[in-house]
Amino acid sequence: MSIRVHDLEPRLLLGPGPSPVPDRVLQAMARPTLGHLDPQFLQLMDDVNERLRGVFGTKNRMTFPVSGTGSAAMEASLANVVEPGDTVVVGVNGVFGTRLAEMARRMGGEVVEVEADWGRIIEPDQIEDALGAHPEAAVVAVVAAETSTGVRQPLDEIGRLAHAHDAMLVVDTVTALGGTPVEVDLNGVDVAYSGTQKCLGVPPGLAPISFSKQAIDKVEARATPVQSWYLDVSLLAGYLGSERRYHHTAPINMMYGLHEGLVALGEEGAQARYARHARVGGRLQEELEERGFRMFAQEGYRLPQLTAAELPDGLEEGPLRRRLLDEHGIEIGGGLGPAKGKLWRIGLMGFGATDENVDRLLSAIDQVLA
Amino acid sequence: MSIRVHDLEPRLLLGPGPSPVPDRVLQAMARPTLGHLDPQFLQLMDDVNERLRGVFGTKNRMTFPVSGTGSAAMEASLANVVEPGDTVVVGVNGVFGTRLAEMARRMGGEVVEVEADWGRIIEPDQIEDALGAHPEAAVVAVVAAETSTGVRQPLDEIGRLAHAHDAMLVVDTVTALGGTPVEVDLNGVDVAYSGTQKCLGVPPGLAPISFSKQAIDKVEARATPVQSWYLDVSLLAGYLGSERRYHHTAPINMMYGLHEGLVALGEEGAQARYARHARVGGRLQEELEERGFRMFAQEGYRLPQLTAAELPDGLEEGPLRRRLLDEHGIEIGGGLGPAKGKLWRIGLMGFGATDENVDRLLSAIDQVLA
Repeated sequence: MSIRVHDLEPRLLLGPGPSPVPDRVLQAMARPTLGHLDPQFLQLMDDVNERLRGVFGTKNRMTFPVSGTGSAAMEASLANVVEPGDTVVVGVNGVFGTRLAEMARRMGGEVVEVEADWGRIIEPDQIEDALGAHPEAAVVAVVAAETSTGVRQPLDEIGRLAHAHDAMLVVDTVTALGGTPVEVDLNGVDVAYSGTQKCLGVPPGLAPISFSKQAIDKVEARATPVQSWYLDVSLLAGYLGSERRYHHTAPINMMYGLHEGLVALGEEGAQARYARHARVGGRLQEELEERGFRMFAQEGYRLPQLTAAELPDGLEEGPLRRRLLDEHGIEIGGGLGPAKGKLWRIGLMGFGATDENVDRLLSAIDQVLA
Repeated sequence: MSIRVHDLEPRLLLGPGPSPVPDRVLQAMARPTLGHLDPQFLQLMDDVNERLRGVFGTKNRMTFPVSGTGSAAMEASLANVVEPGDTVVVGVNGVFGTRLAEMARRMGGEVVEVEADWGRIIEPDQIEDALGAHPEAAVVAVVAAETSTGVRQPLDEIGRLAHAHDAMLVVDTVTALGGTPVEVDLNGVDVAYSGTQKCLGVPPGLAPISFSKQAIDKVEARATPVQSWYLDVSLLAGYLGSERRYHHTAPINMMYGLHEGLVALGEEGAQARYARHARVGGRLQEELEERGFRMFAQEGYRLPQLTAAELPDGLEEGPLRRRLLDEHGIEIGGGLGPAKGKLWRIGLMGFGATDENVDRLLSAIDQVLA
């Protein structure tokens, strides 16, 4: 007997993503597929883009979902604004900053890594020093919500510094968007990108992105074409704009799911959603500390939607995490890179950020630790 | 009142893709999302890859769906096997050959275009001449099923020529896979890629690809890293292989849909499916010729799944096509590039290739032409 989709056992998704997807989003995805040039689909896509502007906090015209997952949007951000030879200052304090640096190098960027210990923020002073030492820097890139460490990176000061040095600010908001305020325009972010499978509560497969006017101007002034045809925002503009020129076939049913997820967000209200994430995530962190877990992220800069917690001394994380999955049907994540084997990563993201889920997880943890 | 997914009016999709998606696939996509490292999901993904090997006709270990649409897989194929400075011989006789050439140039390839009129095949002699003139050629790329013209490109002779000249053969099978035999191993194809939304009958959002051992060896011997981190097959191998190392978050629910679509294909049997496409597409082409339409593709090399037909003299295609959509709920496609305004492109692909759909389309055409 081969495996069938209908036999898959559901899990409670409390890891670093994907997050739990509500039935209304799943049912939207099961609606009949339309063509990518169908007037109805184009109208739906326009509405997705308008709703994304709302949650990103931007008026940027070029705001849309990339046809791929979060890492595709990360690549799209750099592929467009980094030209070979450009100096790119990258904040590296976790997996995703490391990945940004790696991608920028592959695109021919001269990468200046600004490092902090995993679990700590990149201090604005560090960015200022790097920009002082590299006045030619074209791009600064940081991660707003480091999914590998649970760190919330403040953006406003870094946005100010980047612009004072005539550099673009690229920000990874994969785990932030819909869970904590991103405020692209207020923070002076030139390119922000995300994924659907975190605080938006939609399956993975699309990756919202937003480019400022300045970023688009830089793309249009490039001396060399964007290496990636698929991710070239100047080509995508032909499909997204009034011309409606075929570029590639958008993931239609994924777009249905994203639309429904954004409608649900609109019904709750962004501020109410942020408050829910803050309250529920804060409660989990307190309860874990009471049980002897140590928070991995620097105090004052902890994401409520993604908790990285070191286990009480003497406990091996892997087997206990496996028991949560096998005995309780709950998925959480382990550490990545240097944090591998050291910590748990617990997501309370999107529709998963509820007191009921905290109760269920704590009860399961108490049982496997007993 | 804003637009809602549940209010979208279904269409009969008889254009160049997406094709009609059966309810079993849509329902599979609506199953609860799992994590991308969940043992159940990994098993499902392995089964998808094994089923893809079957339909591609290959034993290639690195056979999997790219997390994007067909154009992402096109980019993945070239991004991996083309190094800056490599000579790439590209067959150009339609939109997708043109796109292959454009992508190869962006990757630093020295492109040699082998051209044929739109609607005609690339003759093996032309490839032989190009390889004779460019013995340094590293890659030959052709389109097996040119969606812009309806041409079926024979592959066996080109595969033999490419290998005789120590070049890799890259083949676009986006519209071929599942509709006409691809036979990767028999034809000596080194990289074949496709999309889910054509003859596999699954919504767009994943793009099957297969790399031969020789192709993987070339990737591993590269002097420069693949420009695209997202599409680097040497990194993807870490997730697909026994290591199960996190690379990016796969589009989980899209994978459910693809699995179910491949199960349906297995139930029908590949040979029966090819025969169905051949019979139904052949019938449409005969009926259209009886009505004064002229087939755009060269005789003897017509795809049954994608018919490009010039309208009887004096008819303007755009308004009539729009009437098929508005009055009959049927989507077909128009021409692209130099064929814009000149022809209709009608897809009878995957679950859409039925006599009932041919009847419905012909009846609608008769009404709008009356």
